[in-house]
Amino acid sequence: MIRHAVVTGGAGFIGSNLVDVLLKDGVSVTVIDNLSTGFKRHLDFGNVKVVQRDITLADVEDLAADFAGADTVYHLAANADVRFGWDHPRLDHQQNLVATLNVLDACEKAGVRDIVFSSTGSVYGEAAEIPTPEVAGFPVQTSLYAASKVASEAFIEAHATAGRVRATIFRFVSVLGPRYSHGHVFDFVRQLSRSPKKLTILGDGTQRKSYMHVDDCVAALTSLRPAGDVEVFNLGADGYCTVSDSAGWISRRLGLEPVFEFTGGDRGWIGDNPYIYLDVSKAARAGWKTRRTIRDSVEDTVDWLLANEWIFDAR
Amino acid sequence: MIRHAVVTGGAGFIGSNLVDVLLKDGVSVTVIDNLSTGFKRHLDFGNVKVVQRDITLADVEDLAADFAGADTVYHLAANADVRFGWDHPRLDHQQNLVATLNVLDACEKAGVRDIVFSSTGSVYGEAAEIPTPEVAGFPVQTSLYAASKVASEAFIEAHATAGRVRATIFRFVSVLGPRYSHGHVFDFVRQLSRSPKKLTILGDGTQRKSYMHVDDCVAALTSLRPAGDVEVFNLGADGYCTVSDSAGWISRRLGLEPVFEFTGGDRGWIGDNPYIYLDVSKAARAGWKTRRTIRDSVEDTVDWLLANEWIFDAR
Repeated sequence: MIRHAVVTGGAGFIGSNLVDVLLKDGVSVTVIDNLSTGFKRHLDFGNVKVVQRDITLADVEDLAADFAGADTVYHLAANADVRFGWDHPRLDHQQNLVATLNVLDACEKAGVRDIVFSSTGSVYGEAAEIPTPEVAGFPVQTSLYAASKVASEAFIEAHATAGRVRATIFRFVSVLGPRYSHGHVFDFVRQLSRSPKKLTILGDGTQRKSYMHVDDCVAALTSLRPAGDVEVFNLGADGYCTVSDSAGWISRRLGLEPVFEFTGGDRGWIGDNPYIYLDVSKAARAGWKTRRTIRDSVEDTVDWLLANEWIFDAR
Repeated sequence: MIRHAVVTGGAGFIGSNLVDVLLKDGVSVTVIDNLSTGFKRHLDFGNVKVVQRDITLADVEDLAADFAGADTVYHLAANADVRFGWDHPRLDHQQNLVATLNVLDACEKAGVRDIVFSSTGSVYGEAAEIPTPEVAGFPVQTSLYAASKVASEAFIEAHATAGRVRATIFRFVSVLGPRYSHGHVFDFVRQLSRSPKKLTILGDGTQRKSYMHVDDCVAALTSLRPAGDVEVFNLGADGYCTVSDSAGWISRRLGLEPVFEFTGGDRGWIGDNPYIYLDVSKAARAGWKTRRTIRDSVEDTVDWLLANEWIFDAR
């Protein structure tokens, strides 16, 4: 039973959807967000305490004061920009790992029992086993983003096995839905709203993606917990689409028939993974399942973007 | 063919043994060491350039200047104190991961092709599969030390798969031999030199260890390289002993018959792993094998410690 939760990155896409659900469940919520990519308007309702603070640079004492009284910290704040990692090679380490170490120390200081962490299916690198289970072979990391996430997982696990926190780590695929502001559906809708006859697609369009709706993601974050000190759960759709499939659904939803132009190659950029498809049977055995299909998730996202075009100017 | 190598942590146990071999092979060597746990007297011979610098705190430009002209950087500098991680919870991150990020950036700046990294078998946590192969199931980390090493591996891999360096990552078991200055053989010899009738052993003595001689370790570091961008190799003995076995060999080598007192439990401290035994068949297929047995390695270490008692006062 969660009574008082902290959500880092709570003004972001997944974070603000999580906050909505927590508030509906009667949980007292504190959001900590530096508002660098999150939006305060996502939180313009309900009884949420919003602390504007950069966790990466925060003093642990201040963070512990923010955490006081909380039983659960959802640590979602992160640099999620996988693609441009090499433009600033220290950013993933700083914003993802150092932030996580600050959160861990603040949990210890404030006596928070549970940490819930958003990791990524990217930590499996180019997995030999697909769908990929949590116990897949020890992977080779292929992006700074994934490296920073596997590093964060490792330090969280060390803290949890030492009895300092209980940790639930979620490795998820790309997430779609209301307030989505980043990634290829966003790029495609923006491109088509500006030039409806042509769509440029990075790579050859065959990259397979196993998108999940944010409602399904949030349901897992709030319901799954480890039996022991620490547990890792994969989250994703029970299937996949190609980037071309998704481009087609988006175009139809917009009533357009653009020409697709492919930049070529089997991946969109260095470190892009052409095929992330996770085995989610462990989460299923714990009682979770997706309620939204991939196509439904893509279309719901398009609808939200059309109703919230302000977000294109905000990026 | 290595012509000019940098060895970080080159004044340490493994580092200085590596330097000896490189010099014999006619390689030009620069050692970078903060001399916090290394010893300059380990390098009091041969034509070595020694730079006293703390890599953790170093400016990347300075480090790149140290690296200029090198084809290979052996990055061995690390905080290797697994046992006391919780006394200073940020130290492993700082001294192991941040140092590694500095080395990676300096390699990029100086145009160094090869990075050779000393990781640890501890990254497998409490492995389900024993002997543990490199592709064992994705592990849960059980110490800050191992977390910092798996994090370092991850960032090195991301740099290598992006084509910035070629990386050889070695996960090894505990290493023994001349200049060994840390770990249970050291503790046991020191204890017995002070009170020859009693030996206190952390845990119940059944912890299994797969010790490797430093000569075998160095042979792998200098000879094994990846076919592609990055390769991970396990290194260790082809077998194991228990801590009690080792205590017995040490006592006999010293001509003593002490009473063993066990502190109890199946591990020596939080995060101690009762059983690390690596599958080294991948390194064997690449042409490497150990030449020294575990018992020989333990006895050689005892002999060196007896001939170099100064090291007990230096710790």
